Amino acid sequence: MSGDLGPGAEFDRIRRIVAELGSHASGIGDDCATLADGPGTIALSTDLSIEDVHFKTEWLSFREIGWRAAASALSDLAAEGASAIGILVSLGVPAGAGDSAVVELMAGAGQAVHSVGGALLGGDLSRSDKWLVNVTVVGRAMRPVSRSGARAGESLWVTGSLGGSRAALNAWLRGEQPAAMAREAFARPVPRIHSGVQLALLGATAMLDISDGLGGDAAHLAAASSCGLEIDLSLLPIHPDVPAAATLAGVSPGEFAGLGGEDFELLVVMPATFSSELADRLARETGVPLTRIGGVMAGPGVRFLHGGNEVRLTGFDHFSGLVG
Amino acid sequence: MSGDLGPGAEFDRIRRIVAELGSHASGIGDDCATLADGPGTIALSTDLSIEDVHFKTEWLSFREIGWRAAASALSDLAAEGASAIGILVSLGVPAGAGDSAVVELMAGAGQAVHSVGGALLGGDLSRSDKWLVNVTVVGRAMRPVSRSGARAGESLWVTGSLGGSRAALNAWLRGEQPAAMAREAFARPVPRIHSGVQLALLGATAMLDISDGLGGDAAHLAAASSCGLEIDLSLLPIHPDVPAAATLAGVSPGEFAGLGGEDFELLVVMPATFSSELADRLARETGVPLTRIGGVMAGPGVRFLHGGNEVRLTGFDHFSGLVG
Repeated sequence: MSGDLGPGAEFDRIRRIVAELGSHASGIGDDCATLADGPGTIALSTDLSIEDVHFKTEWLSFREIGWRAAASALSDLAAEGASAIGILVSLGVPAGAGDSAVVELMAGAGQAVHSVGGALLGGDLSRSDKWLVNVTVVGRAMRPVSRSGARAGESLWVTGSLGGSRAALNAWLRGEQPAAMAREAFARPVPRIHSGVQLALLGATAMLDISDGLGGDAAHLAAASSCGLEIDLSLLPIHPDVPAAATLAGVSPGEFAGLGGEDFELLVVMPATFSSELADRLARETGVPLTRIGGVMAGPGVRFLHGGNEVRLTGFDHFSGLVG
Repeated sequence: MSGDLGPGAEFDRIRRIVAELGSHASGIGDDCATLADGPGTIALSTDLSIEDVHFKTEWLSFREIGWRAAASALSDLAAEGASAIGILVSLGVPAGAGDSAVVELMAGAGQAVHSVGGALLGGDLSRSDKWLVNVTVVGRAMRPVSRSGARAGESLWVTGSLGGSRAALNAWLRGEQPAAMAREAFARPVPRIHSGVQLALLGATAMLDISDGLGGDAAHLAAASSCGLEIDLSLLPIHPDVPAAATLAGVSPGEFAGLGGEDFELLVVMPATFSSELADRLARETGVPLTRIGGVMAGPGVRFLHGGNEVRLTGFDHFSGLVG
């Protein structure tokens, strides 16, 4: 993608995107993006968003679709404890779509990566039946954090608040407009890059992002770390729109937030030395809440407690899709 | 993607893929793939292939679809002069598709990257209406080559042979089976990684891969380098199945091969010091032909000559799609 391209409709489109993104696009216009040398480990992840599976164009503006696709991919960098260098965006564009939709979508993706200090590094455009956005993220981690380092006796924390995206989604699926804050949680998730980097430097032993819901993702962390997790649903940081949505869904707010899905918050295991005082200081510095929700046990699997009783919580299987 | 994942249908599928790929998959199973330190510059590119736009499932086996998607993306690394570290593959899978199709496709992508010394580093799976494969490639270049370094007086070369993919495509579009070698050119393009690395080390000043056809891609190189190119179509290395296909298309073999498309060969500008003897030696070492087809001029644009006469050659616009 470049200003030095030859003729052709695809390349006109790319020129318009680059013009719109300005300084949010970097070094676009060759076969590859190239990264300058730097310290730490390169981290990479890729994330596919498809119309009518992950979003609907009736729900979100094209700018929001682009932001959300990029933010959800950047969330994987955050979960590695990596800072963002940039993104590569592949876009499938329906035949009748206008250039402004393409430019808005790419601008939204560009804003998301710019908000965490990275740039659009490259991409690909193709015709497709439905809108699709694949975002590959690349970053650098000074201390990469996997999912597999949790040990019994450590504490379990979560960033931000849970359940907002699901509250918005449930409203849309009922044919209603979601509450403003719930809609914002779904449409403009904030990549937790800064929290992830800080948590890694403070000694996080395992970390992942809760994109499939706390239930499912906690099970992945437990399996990868060969340990057990105990989570107290009454401790979950609940998104403000969750209580009303939970009532409509006929479950407790804790269960609703625990099933969640698409929250893109970090689930992180911290060593025993990590104190509430450190957590408070980190939350103040990053502006992102950090809440202790449980701990790491010896046994396998995840136990959910609520008011002292064990609760069964079934995870969200991403492959079944959000919609339809 | 990992053997240490929690429960879920998506994760069962991923476990099957990892089991099939064996040593062709590397370090899969976390939020990000991580790269060890190494010399040179990191190079990245992303490439989207969509059913009925870039391929049809009636034409190719799933293993070939995976190979071709990965090889076409790896071709961008070759054009940068980079060796391959690995790929990240996002897969959109139609609802009714069986696990074996998914595993075959990923195995084909894994074989392609393994053939050039890289590994499958990560990926994403989603439901979609049609098959889609997005491949992000990552590699390292000791001497990255852009499109913009060509200078008047230098010579223009191409790897391999041209027009085979187009011959296969034309046959399919007529409802016929393509000739075996033409079909192979379309279904199993060989990423020119080794040639690209060697050409870079021998001083290539500009390089790109001919995925949109020689006509269109030469124009990109000329525009990026702010120079002119002169190409003699009678010098093009013609795929063995081109003469028959050109006759059916009513054009000369040189024009047919020059329009080409999807050949994934390298178009490379070499300094004046690069001799035919060096080219021959490189071709013997890599097993890939290297043919001089023209030179770099002062003026803008690309001139095509055939038997001393100027010929007009219109490039292939990828966004219009191969099919339909």
